[in-house]
Amino acid sequence: MPDRFDAIYRIRADVATIEARAQAIAVEQSVEMPLDAIDDPRVLSEIVGRVAAITDRGGGLYDVRIALAIETVGGDAAQLLNMAFGNTSLHDDVVLLDLDLPAEMAARFGGPRHGIDGLRHRVAAGARALTCSAIKPLGLPPDRLAELAGRFALGGIDFIKDDHGMADQAAAPFAARMPACAEAVRQSAAVAGHPTHYVPSLSGDLGALRRQLRLARNEGIDTVLIAPLLIGFATMQTLVREFPDMAFIAHPTMGGAARISPALLIGRLFPLIGADAVIFPNHGGRFGYSPVTCRTIAATARAPGTGLRGALPVPAGGMTLARVPEMLDFYGRDAMLLIGGNLLAAGDQLTRQTAAFTRAVAAHAHEGQ
Amino acid sequence: MPDRFDAIYRIRADVATIEARAQAIAVEQSVEMPLDAIDDPRVLSEIVGRVAAITDRGGGLYDVRIALAIETVGGDAAQLLNMAFGNTSLHDDVVLLDLDLPAEMAARFGGPRHGIDGLRHRVAAGARALTCSAIKPLGLPPDRLAELAGRFALGGIDFIKDDHGMADQAAAPFAARMPACAEAVRQSAAVAGHPTHYVPSLSGDLGALRRQLRLARNEGIDTVLIAPLLIGFATMQTLVREFPDMAFIAHPTMGGAARISPALLIGRLFPLIGADAVIFPNHGGRFGYSPVTCRTIAATARAPGTGLRGALPVPAGGMTLARVPEMLDFYGRDAMLLIGGNLLAAGDQLTRQTAAFTRAVAAHAHEGQ
Repeated sequence: MPDRFDAIYRIRADVATIEARAQAIAVEQSVEMPLDAIDDPRVLSEIVGRVAAITDRGGGLYDVRIALAIETVGGDAAQLLNMAFGNTSLHDDVVLLDLDLPAEMAARFGGPRHGIDGLRHRVAAGARALTCSAIKPLGLPPDRLAELAGRFALGGIDFIKDDHGMADQAAAPFAARMPACAEAVRQSAAVAGHPTHYVPSLSGDLGALRRQLRLARNEGIDTVLIAPLLIGFATMQTLVREFPDMAFIAHPTMGGAARISPALLIGRLFPLIGADAVIFPNHGGRFGYSPVTCRTIAATARAPGTGLRGALPVPAGGMTLARVPEMLDFYGRDAMLLIGGNLLAAGDQLTRQTAAFTRAVAAHAHEGQ
Repeated sequence: MPDRFDAIYRIRADVATIEARAQAIAVEQSVEMPLDAIDDPRVLSEIVGRVAAITDRGGGLYDVRIALAIETVGGDAAQLLNMAFGNTSLHDDVVLLDLDLPAEMAARFGGPRHGIDGLRHRVAAGARALTCSAIKPLGLPPDRLAELAGRFALGGIDFIKDDHGMADQAAAPFAARMPACAEAVRQSAAVAGHPTHYVPSLSGDLGALRRQLRLARNEGIDTVLIAPLLIGFATMQTLVREFPDMAFIAHPTMGGAARISPALLIGRLFPLIGADAVIFPNHGGRFGYSPVTCRTIAATARAPGTGLRGALPVPAGGMTLARVPEMLDFYGRDAMLLIGGNLLAAGDQLTRQTAAFTRAVAAHAHEGQ
């Protein structure tokens, strides 16, 4: 087993300062103390971070590769964030660009347990792209949300998720909302003849999350929505390990990706700790990600690391029916399209518009077909 | 009980676009769907976010106050982050500047359970400022770390914390490190005649954190170090509730404060969910925070909200003995000075330098004395 992994930082600096800045990060992210105050030879040779490469990217930006000791992380995913970016995240001049983990280290975290094939199989999607929508808004009671979910399912959609803002609020507590929506989707799926899956959103501490997962499993749910940055990376690891039958779709809320590269955070780290699908803001919607960023997130999620299953990319955030062909050309068939507000805006035409969405995806001729 | 709390955002925009941008955030952070697709009058009047004020700050920056529904948050601190900044954190043009919570809402979270007075009382500090150092580096075995902790305690320091990088690594597992350091500090404290407290760093999921807290309590520990952004806000809430005898010192690792105002994140939110002391990077050290930012963090931590206890500000990050008088003039006596690497660099003079540190703090004549 190798004893180092690499963290790659993009740093604003100049040619006179970059070497010292790189060395300072290597110290900050390992021993966090003056090296000449360390008298232990093992710590100096095996623990202190090492600057492995500095690449000038032009325009005052440098990419710096630092080799950090695997033993400072162990198998704890929160500790991976702590050692890769913890204190350095407080500096303005640096973005965490990527992590390069040896296969043996990635295997400890395990990656997606179901991944692209598992999600495809759940909804009998064959080789086409997958479809998803969301029930909203916050504040509706369970019966109104369940009615909405049922209408989406009548349109033959693959997955219907809770809005990521839905937690355990008084207007629609999890224990009332989840069974009502699950039942409505079961009934509509039987009518429509398509195995639509309802994906409830989980929240709270580990105890609450476990209770919600058990309740969901009792309702036949096998796919859930989770926000890794809200529940914490260590908590997510535990859930993925304890509920191996569940597929986990990761929501990027609180991702604040300006300081961690979105491709790393959403595309690599969410799958690493067990996300089977990752939602991210598509270009040209409500968020400012570029097409290059989106393509990189998708490519990274599908191949998050040696020996790990791929996770399904889920572009979202203000998507419309009109964009379906263009998005399928852009992402190909290993993707799930998520259209929320645009379908909800159809009002009493919701089921019809949903059916148009699912037909457009099923009928799309992918490049090379 | 009021039904709204305010989130204040600093937005890059211009006079032609700011109103639409503010309204878009009000929708994003509440119902996240087109308003004309909502037919429920209760949701429109009670749930949808409302732009309450827009203030031109000059230079293309605007401060926007948005009133959000308290019922979308409930009592879950992770959900507070989700509703205040979740999706909006993914946008480049906006920083979450502050939260204005009604006292009744803040009381649900509870704030520091021990706070400034509780920490002062633990170490019989009287009216002076408090002192702290850290045992490092990562990679040393428990007996070496315990020896270091003992030498700090002989110098009469108030608190000795684990390096925040210390988790449950093989070189010094928590169950071996914590009792060894606690015992060394007990012995030295008896010799020095000062009630030095050892503050172990906690990590892992809720189950691991609970086990570590129980082990620590059995060793007589009553103060611990925790990283709210690593363990998750909901998990921290649970620990604070379940271990009312423990004081919690919050570490800012993974704070990436460029997108959330440091005064809000470290000064207000960490105390809100129960931190009794908050560590932050002092100006002029290894990090780039300005004096104004540091003063604001300290002032906010000491008065985090109506009806809540104050939390103790802990400036740190590359501090030196030489800076003690200046720091005490700057922060006053309701502060704990944390000097780590600079004391460790003293080598076999560690105890003597630590004693010089504690004497400098005890002897300082605060303004107005």
